[in-house]
Amino acid sequence: MARLKRVVLDRLIRYYRFLADVSDGRRADTVTSSRIGAALEVDPSQVRKDFGTVGLIGMSRVGYDACEVCRTIRTVVGFDRPYGGVLIGAGKLGGAILASAEVDRYGLRIVAAFDSDPFKVGRHIEGVTILPIRVLATYVMEHQIRLAILTIPPSAAQPLADLLVSCGVEAIWNFTPARLEVPRGVLVRNQRLTAGLGEIAYHLKGPRRAVRHRDYAAAIEGADAS
Amino acid sequence: MARLKRVVLDRLIRYYRFLADVSDGRRADTVTSSRIGAALEVDPSQVRKDFGTVGLIGMSRVGYDACEVCRTIRTVVGFDRPYGGVLIGAGKLGGAILASAEVDRYGLRIVAAFDSDPFKVGRHIEGVTILPIRVLATYVMEHQIRLAILTIPPSAAQPLADLLVSCGVEAIWNFTPARLEVPRGVLVRNQRLTAGLGEIAYHLKGPRRAVRHRDYAAAIEGADAS
Repeated sequence: MARLKRVVLDRLIRYYRFLADVSDGRRADTVTSSRIGAALEVDPSQVRKDFGTVGLIGMSRVGYDACEVCRTIRTVVGFDRPYGGVLIGAGKLGGAILASAEVDRYGLRIVAAFDSDPFKVGRHIEGVTILPIRVLATYVMEHQIRLAILTIPPSAAQPLADLLVSCGVEAIWNFTPARLEVPRGVLVRNQRLTAGLGEIAYHLKGPRRAVRHRDYAAAIEGADAS
Repeated sequence: MARLKRVVLDRLIRYYRFLADVSDGRRADTVTSSRIGAALEVDPSQVRKDFGTVGLIGMSRVGYDACEVCRTIRTVVGFDRPYGGVLIGAGKLGGAILASAEVDRYGLRIVAAFDSDPFKVGRHIEGVTILPIRVLATYVMEHQIRLAILTIPPSAAQPLADLLVSCGVEAIWNFTPARLEVPRGVLVRNQRLTAGLGEIAYHLKGPRRAVRHRDYAAAIEGADAS
């Protein structure tokens, strides 16, 4: 299959996430393009077109087999090929990433964490050992690590990225505000914990929503009863 | 000023984040639309147009006063009006959000955290007290809390959202995979820690990048020297 266009890829990932979320913990059977479209605000005809691109064909009036859709997207996007990643910076955010049950769903296996703090080295978070940063290069090369997750101060990010890339790392999941320069062929995916706050601030800049007094009363009553 | 279009708002927030990042810790003076455009992959003429929309006028050959740009965007988007938020779920991710120095930059003041775990209640994370979830409704109403941050199991998200909305909360920053239903006028901003992993998996599905042996050797040498 030819490389997917970025917009198609993004939509396929959203469909996958939606189906994985709704099927979490219970058996999903069939799903229609209208249901996916309504939930994700995508035109149902677009959903069908994207599914067609990856070879998925729906049944008239029934829709798509949800398992087959998930399986196909997993294969097309590559979630079915587990790859090793290391976490650099074993702080609070690093701990939250290690604790996320979702990471597995996308093929990532975080195999080690690194920190420069000698008090953290040797400890375990979420079953992963924290190693000293001085062994990072050797570890990455020996274990052919493909992804590095950066949750470190921004000033340390570029030198570490250079080291990681020279050790064969092919993708950097960058939680720092640093803008990293990497050679062609290496992916930097910037991620900000605070990405949504701009939209929230703008929403709250508007007039305050009126809350009816009986809602207050009902809420207190409900809270007291629980 | 009329409500900004979503795409314009998103770009303004990106400009602000870029300028806040690059000026972190040192005095920024002027900035050109070309520099912002190149860094953010936006056409410089679009940058100038967006700046014009919020009343910013550049000086020929000099560009824009970086402080003025930041100040103007802060005002337009509403980052200059601090608002109170509560965190619900004082786990690892909650701790990482409380620890983020960036939250302040967007006007958010997290004034309390709530958890259902009695062992957590009464403790402090990042200077914020953890309160029992049963006092949530009263607290939110008394302190006129406008934002709630959800880092809880998805099954608890909708009942909590209902309670919060009835207590006057106007925006929910939702880190759970639950799809929340809220009345018109309440904003739900979904945020996934793992948002970037789809793109990373697809990148890594491609052929492995060749690493030259001398890069390996240099990396080990560099690591040994440090």
